[in-house]
Amino acid sequence: MPLRMSTLFLRTLRDDPADAEVASHKLLVRAGYIRRAAPGGYTWLPLGLRVKNKVETIVREEMNAIGGQEVHFPALLPKEPYEATGRWEDYGDGIFRLQDRSGADFLLAPTHEELFTLLVKDHFSSYKDLPVYLYQIQTKYRDEARPRAGLLRVREFIMKDSYSFTVDDEGLDEAYDKHRQAYIRIFQRLGLDVVAVRATAGAMGGSRSEEFLHPSPAGEDTFVESPGGYRANVEAVETVVPEAIDYADAPPAEVKDTPVSTTIAALVDVANKLAPKAEGNWQAAETLKCVVLTAVLDGDERKLFVVAVPGDRDVDIKRLEASIAEALDVPGEPEIEPATEADIASHAGLVPGYIGPTLLTNGSAVQILGTESKTGIPFFVDPRIVPGSSWVTGANVDQQHVFGLIAGRDFTWDGVIEATAVRDGDPAPDGSGPLATRRGMEMGHIFQLGRKYAEALDLKVLDEHGKQVVVTMGSYGIGVSRAVAALAEAHHDDKGLIWPMNVAPAHVHIVATGKDEEIFNTAEDIANKLEAAGVEVLYDDRRKAQAGVKFSDAELIGVPLHLIVGRGLAKGTLELKDRQANTREDIPVEDAIDHIVDLVRSYQDFAD
Amino acid sequence: MPLRMSTLFLRTLRDDPADAEVASHKLLVRAGYIRRAAPGGYTWLPLGLRVKNKVETIVREEMNAIGGQEVHFPALLPKEPYEATGRWEDYGDGIFRLQDRSGADFLLAPTHEELFTLLVKDHFSSYKDLPVYLYQIQTKYRDEARPRAGLLRVREFIMKDSYSFTVDDEGLDEAYDKHRQAYIRIFQRLGLDVVAVRATAGAMGGSRSEEFLHPSPAGEDTFVESPGGYRANVEAVETVVPEAIDYADAPPAEVKDTPVSTTIAALVDVANKLAPKAEGNWQAAETLKCVVLTAVLDGDERKLFVVAVPGDRDVDIKRLEASIAEALDVPGEPEIEPATEADIASHAGLVPGYIGPTLLTNGSAVQILGTESKTGIPFFVDPRIVPGSSWVTGANVDQQHVFGLIAGRDFTWDGVIEATAVRDGDPAPDGSGPLATRRGMEMGHIFQLGRKYAEALDLKVLDEHGKQVVVTMGSYGIGVSRAVAALAEAHHDDKGLIWPMNVAPAHVHIVATGKDEEIFNTAEDIANKLEAAGVEVLYDDRRKAQAGVKFSDAELIGVPLHLIVGRGLAKGTLELKDRQANTREDIPVEDAIDHIVDLVRSYQDFAD
Repeated sequence: MPLRMSTLFLRTLRDDPADAEVASHKLLVRAGYIRRAAPGGYTWLPLGLRVKNKVETIVREEMNAIGGQEVHFPALLPKEPYEATGRWEDYGDGIFRLQDRSGADFLLAPTHEELFTLLVKDHFSSYKDLPVYLYQIQTKYRDEARPRAGLLRVREFIMKDSYSFTVDDEGLDEAYDKHRQAYIRIFQRLGLDVVAVRATAGAMGGSRSEEFLHPSPAGEDTFVESPGGYRANVEAVETVVPEAIDYADAPPAEVKDTPVSTTIAALVDVANKLAPKAEGNWQAAETLKCVVLTAVLDGDERKLFVVAVPGDRDVDIKRLEASIAEALDVPGEPEIEPATEADIASHAGLVPGYIGPTLLTNGSAVQILGTESKTGIPFFVDPRIVPGSSWVTGANVDQQHVFGLIAGRDFTWDGVIEATAVRDGDPAPDGSGPLATRRGMEMGHIFQLGRKYAEALDLKVLDEHGKQVVVTMGSYGIGVSRAVAALAEAHHDDKGLIWPMNVAPAHVHIVATGKDEEIFNTAEDIANKLEAAGVEVLYDDRRKAQAGVKFSDAELIGVPLHLIVGRGLAKGTLELKDRQANTREDIPVEDAIDHIVDLVRSYQDFAD
Repeated sequence: MPLRMSTLFLRTLRDDPADAEVASHKLLVRAGYIRRAAPGGYTWLPLGLRVKNKVETIVREEMNAIGGQEVHFPALLPKEPYEATGRWEDYGDGIFRLQDRSGADFLLAPTHEELFTLLVKDHFSSYKDLPVYLYQIQTKYRDEARPRAGLLRVREFIMKDSYSFTVDDEGLDEAYDKHRQAYIRIFQRLGLDVVAVRATAGAMGGSRSEEFLHPSPAGEDTFVESPGGYRANVEAVETVVPEAIDYADAPPAEVKDTPVSTTIAALVDVANKLAPKAEGNWQAAETLKCVVLTAVLDGDERKLFVVAVPGDRDVDIKRLEASIAEALDVPGEPEIEPATEADIASHAGLVPGYIGPTLLTNGSAVQILGTESKTGIPFFVDPRIVPGSSWVTGANVDQQHVFGLIAGRDFTWDGVIEATAVRDGDPAPDGSGPLATRRGMEMGHIFQLGRKYAEALDLKVLDEHGKQVVVTMGSYGIGVSRAVAALAEAHHDDKGLIWPMNVAPAHVHIVATGKDEEIFNTAEDIANKLEAAGVEVLYDDRRKAQAGVKFSDAELIGVPLHLIVGRGLAKGTLELKDRQANTREDIPVEDAIDHIVDLVRSYQDFAD
């Protein structure tokens, strides 16, 4: 049966919602696809539900095609499994926790690694049972601090999450690659441009990981790409490490007065004025910025550390957080904050604004940062601080800096750590030229979890030699509700949405205009015949709405084909508009059904 | 593609789960449809998910057929709308409440009346927009104190909830009747025997209401039916009120010593011994039991009241709770508890064990119960206490009762209230004979909500005279996950499940037995041809499993038709078993496809 505008639960809105900033949020609300029901919670209205269901169906078909088996877990889960893997704590404020009437702790699951692990443990005990790929399409919960951008950043959302269970790493590689290919097909069928980029694993743990990002200025992620096709989330880009420099002939380091130079800009100014170089000017990139930070460990212990980066770059806290636990050899996922004045004051020897790795005494540098040093403060450097590189940096004396301090000669470090964000123009790891940065929306994420969850929850099987082995896992997510928003971001114009055929709430929007009974009879007849031929019709059968209102509603709603049954009918023609191709043509009434069926099929075949 | 037992995520279990009492719980777990994941939370395994989806599809089709439009709300909702209608408090411990990171209050929605009301308010403003029927199929949450019986009593479950919005009561009647008819069709298509019984509205408010109960010994509800077809939940049965009795010639009431008779049984004994009747023996039904109860009002205020019932009947607290707010003229839904000793002691004049409505002074009865009386305690009577009826009841003096106390002559009451449970053999309200009680499982519930929610949330539209009118609502629920359990309860034998064709995880279970390659090739070929003909196949393609294991798995899983490809193949025959009809026949290989397709269709047509 065609959907009828006269009875459809729909009110298009002329104005954008007050809180809407991005196009998908504005258009999905105005065109009647979603409506806000809670902070970070949206109601799917009839049109939106149709689009969402089509996205789910495509995801489901492709997951089934790689042998995925669908199950469905509760969202409300007891604390214990998440405690066993440490995620109950690791998620911090990011998840919803609650208690039942007896005071037992529960959470609203953000993802289900633990439960899938336990389910497989409950079912299987032999390598012969593996591999198995399980998935669900389910409502997930995260306690977003600032829900915004419509469906893009919400607290309740729909995800497909799948999990692979294999007996070894080879099996994992195969499962990972199958999912990777399935994801590429899914996004192609959805009509959504995505790029796969290297990613960090975050709270999930594990090793190899890629994100599928939809390039969009509204995206919250930044990724880089090289001319040669290297792509990575900025958080995951490996810095191209310059070669070490021979410092045999380097002159000794020298302390100079640099009054009132607690910022890099001021330091560069002062240096150019009071200690000019033989050739050219001092640049920020020649200075070494030592940033004092605090890692907040489990139990709220604050652990001070220092990271040195080239002065023209800023520390990227998010990126540091990805590796600081390993660098400091502490459990969990510590948050990192700038050190407070109190933190710094608690360490004698740190002179705010003039901090450097060493004190220069009688011409030789005495290291004061690093676990082996006097202060004992862990000291890390960015990969760009290679042995032999020469730096202007704090002298640990008020209003003085040291010039020509040589890495590896005058100071050493506890570790090298990716500490700064990559920038446009930085060299690409694949050597193909400079990196360019772009914004993107995360649509999917695939992880090689390895054995972290299986170990924590004791999921083992007997291998072919009768030995107990820990099962190897992968985890693979696609944001279903997010995909709907991304599709709206990618496919709209100033008049409204323009859905790809495969996900559109209907294939054809029939607009009957005028008062003539013949017009409505013809429109009704065509609508029924198209439906019978498998074409989904949204039929504007409203008798009292103006033609202009009907056209602008149709443009806003964004069904890909519009068929106008109106004045032309007297001459035996209908008008067919193609929103995507932005074309219009008159077609004879008698050809309408065949023509439209063919057009719809050609769009569907193209996407599949 | 056929489902293959060799790869299907399934392990059938030989033993019942330790906590399982009812058949559906045992069989759904043993046959691999569901697995427990949390207290009151179950995971749908692949077979279970297929059954659940089929149930949902039938529900969806029938809701669409009556003009229902599907939407989908969040489950995690802010407190405010539920506070506006009073349900935030009314639900007590029965719902899950939680806070977000900023401390704002949320709940996991048990039903969505408020949100649907607000959504319609947000969309519509004229009677021309009505009627509208909206529904969702969604995960719901209730903080069950004692989750049990598998899917029958859980904390997270799937419900279809729909809501009708109409401009007046006539519209509501129409919406209610349409839903009622849709529900009858749904259960018929599901293959689930249900009866519609009159019900009380409970926390939902509203007036007319029916439950759809599946008659089953495992049911938690009790309903009655009359020979004439009257059916009602015991809580909702209207007592057949005896006719009033002419008491013009009744002798005056008389106090007698009845030592040590604080129970009805003791009183009857004592009365028969010390105050024998002229004819026959005293019966419990001739005594009047005055029960002191406490209604716990909002703010925990305890309000004492007394209910008088015939001594052979017990007070039904649940039934009292349904009407006590109205009787006492207090807001909310007070819980009722037996009065404590302290409650009773706080009212001078109540003599525990000997409480009655009056004190007999100089031969005339002075009423001491009732708001107009000396104690001021509200006093209600069961409908059976008709004017002129004569009672033996407490004399409000220790170890004394009064005999021949006439209702309406010697005492009056503040109100008549349904206070006792109906019993087998009680007269039916339709006059068709005695009522019989049966157990049933609640599968659906339909309510005429009226204007309670629309008033609380100010949902009004302009009527045809341009006047603002409050919208009239109905609310209609079906338990989807519960239906799966009920189907398992209704359709099994001692070997396992026997699904009706319309909801079975597959239509045919092909069992290939033996080692012969020819057998597996034939089975595979038939499986593919049946799938191509639209018949869903579960194919036991396991090479190493014993025939006996395959047969008992097939019986446990309960696909309605079993096709055995085995020894008979040498003679060109296959064996077809019909689990439901409990028949088996040999069919020629060449007829197998047509025969099975016809059989499957005939089962489906029968159910539709």
